[in-house]
Amino acid sequence: MIEVEVKAHVKSFENVELKLNEIGAVKSKKEHQLDTYFNNPSYRDFEKTDEALRIRDTTTEGEKHLILTYKGAKMDEISKTRKEIEVNIEDYEQMSLILENLGFKPAADVEKERTEYLYKDFIISLDNVLKVGKFVEIEKGMREGEDFKDALDEIFKIYKKLGIEDGFERKSYLELMGVYKG
Amino acid sequence: MIEVEVKAHVKSFENVELKLNEIGAVKSKKEHQLDTYFNNPSYRDFEKTDEALRIRDTTTEGEKHLILTYKGAKMDEISKTRKEIEVNIEDYEQMSLILENLGFKPAADVEKERTEYLYKDFIISLDNVLKVGKFVEIEKGMREGEDFKDALDEIFKIYKKLGIEDGFERKSYLELMGVYKG
Repeated sequence: MIEVEVKAHVKSFENVELKLNEIGAVKSKKEHQLDTYFNNPSYRDFEKTDEALRIRDTTTEGEKHLILTYKGAKMDEISKTRKEIEVNIEDYEQMSLILENLGFKPAADVEKERTEYLYKDFIISLDNVLKVGKFVEIEKGMREGEDFKDALDEIFKIYKKLGIEDGFERKSYLELMGVYKG
Repeated sequence: MIEVEVKAHVKSFENVELKLNEIGAVKSKKEHQLDTYFNNPSYRDFEKTDEALRIRDTTTEGEKHLILTYKGAKMDEISKTRKEIEVNIEDYEQMSLILENLGFKPAADVEKERTEYLYKDFIISLDNVLKVGKFVEIEKGMREGEDFKDALDEIFKIYKKLGIEDGFERKSYLELMGVYKG
């Protein structure tokens, strides 16, 4: 799958949430996410290849989910659009041990509170990222090979509707934390 | 976890099943297993390192389970004892795609019918392996660092009780198929 995605730094969510209500976006969930990023510099240094390998531990209303995610390098110069592959897993420790035995070591953690809204076929996330700040992410999943230019145009139109016209950020939370790309 | 394991080639299961009943082993399940082994020779050639990385797709009474497994190199000269780490996963295709994007490509498949018996804290598997033959595996999970010599002695005693005194095989099914170690 291709994740067409843009992220913008904001000072507060207050105005954004008002606008989300105005345009009819629907709050779908609120979750705590703890992401552990893995890297294997001696084999393939994800900081250089712009890939990412992560285990996400999410908790939504007491329910826990674990997801292993691979992200490919970014595919354009304006967005964070990239290949994304996800699989639900049952055990954090065991998955982590398998990755470590294959040479992929935990490199950094990112922790955030995410409030997710649905609008048309887009997901709008309000991310409060520990040690980094507040961000609004808008994304849409597309099939590989599909043209994602129209989706990107629409994403920027949604940002406009939300009153966000600057603060766009292509750097990952890991980069913003000064850790590594991710 | 350490999987203390010995495998023996047999001509038929008939006599073994009689003896299993005699000693009071309990048939626990019958399943179809399709294993896909992955390898990444340009990074770490599992044929040389004696490790294995596998997705197992099992079906037991119509119920499907998917397991990602890493196995370390064999730890002695007489058994197949090795480190084993397993995690249940939800989707074969997605897991396979993640591994492939990390450079681990499907190298070979092993397909078998397994009938599993429980006896004390051992698992006894009667494996009918496509293109390879019939095998009786006896195994026990132990913690890393624990001495597994006694467990091995007991495994060989169980083989004796089952009337199996030769045919012991340290080669993996992949090796026996002439594909690669695994």
